[in-house]
Amino acid sequence: MKKAKKIALVLAGCGNKDGTEITEAVSLIVQLSQLGAELKFFAPDQIYTPVNFINGQKHSEKRNVLEESARIARGNIEELKKLNPSEFDALVFPGGFGAALHLCNWAEKGAKCDVLPSVEVAVREFHRQSKPIAAVCVAPTLLARLLGEEGVTLTLGNDPEVAAEIEKTGAHHVECPVDDYVTDREHKVITSPAYMYGQALPHQVFKGISGLAKELMEMA
Amino acid sequence: MKKAKKIALVLAGCGNKDGTEITEAVSLIVQLSQLGAELKFFAPDQIYTPVNFINGQKHSEKRNVLEESARIARGNIEELKKLNPSEFDALVFPGGFGAALHLCNWAEKGAKCDVLPSVEVAVREFHRQSKPIAAVCVAPTLLARLLGEEGVTLTLGNDPEVAAEIEKTGAHHVECPVDDYVTDREHKVITSPAYMYGQALPHQVFKGISGLAKELMEMA
Repeated sequence: MKKAKKIALVLAGCGNKDGTEITEAVSLIVQLSQLGAELKFFAPDQIYTPVNFINGQKHSEKRNVLEESARIARGNIEELKKLNPSEFDALVFPGGFGAALHLCNWAEKGAKCDVLPSVEVAVREFHRQSKPIAAVCVAPTLLARLLGEEGVTLTLGNDPEVAAEIEKTGAHHVECPVDDYVTDREHKVITSPAYMYGQALPHQVFKGISGLAKELMEMA
Repeated sequence: MKKAKKIALVLAGCGNKDGTEITEAVSLIVQLSQLGAELKFFAPDQIYTPVNFINGQKHSEKRNVLEESARIARGNIEELKKLNPSEFDALVFPGGFGAALHLCNWAEKGAKCDVLPSVEVAVREFHRQSKPIAAVCVAPTLLARLLGEEGVTLTLGNDPEVAAEIEKTGAHHVECPVDDYVTDREHKVITSPAYMYGQALPHQVFKGISGLAKELMEMA
């Protein structure tokens, strides 16, 4: 029997405004499960200020990224620092604003953002081991920041301002519709824009991510 | 052009241990979107004690069911009391323990549970208007409690103890595998067990819910 491919998914909370986009995460989970992958979830153990999703205001009490990410993972999650790239065949980052708030500070600093050390270690080591990395929605910013100097090609949809900021890192930005994805075979990086299109329909997001998941499983 | 069918989804928080099961909710959202439905989300505006998904312990601070449900709905949500059944073609309850904690107290009282008045009003009115109602995982307990006296047929999987408790309401319980669903054409009730099978794989849950969603759209 062929051994199942092991995929590490990095979450950044629960919900698009201050964490991982839920529909994107579940689209990845369902499709990778369908393709026979064994999934394991990781998130950083750090405190953040959550947002009220109804009125957009910040909360007074704090939450923990790892603990809230566990809601999507049904408890099957470990601290990101414990991720050992040698044990996995591929690395995946769903989107949601949490990726640009907690995994790096792109939301604040754009192309010159700082990346969380545990994220940088993971990306660089999967990349060094020539294992594919997928990122959805806003999460490709991480890959632009870390692999831009190598001229990685990726997509964040069709916003010219976002594309211009991405290209400051040295990365090449390619326009892509919501239900599709972009593959950089040389760098083994696959990206899909998903809810970078704010008015996207859930099944369009699912379709783009399904294509990305198939490509990832073929490369892994 | 044919008018889109309007579906009301009732959420009960965000995450399987104290709210709506996320993979179930998104499976419904993706499939109903694929089938052309227009979705609107509702949840009760009430306070609850959240659970830490990593160690299973209760939190000290409280959260609000409507506000946490908004994470799944990306903010597109209203208070359950504002749901007007005449404006919709069907009613859907995803599962997760929140359904048995916040929408009724089945978790505590079983077959003799109390149902939240806004849930009871919604179920009785959709049923009176002969509009289909779907429920996933543990959420069919609500329909057993409210429609059991009419002899509704439904499933919560294959646990004999759960089935026995369901039958105390007068409802008929039918065994069903994770990737399938049960239709009661007379009462227009469709149910799928999903994560009532705790070890289910995400794509199996998606398959069962996809079947349920298609059946619901045909009946609506």
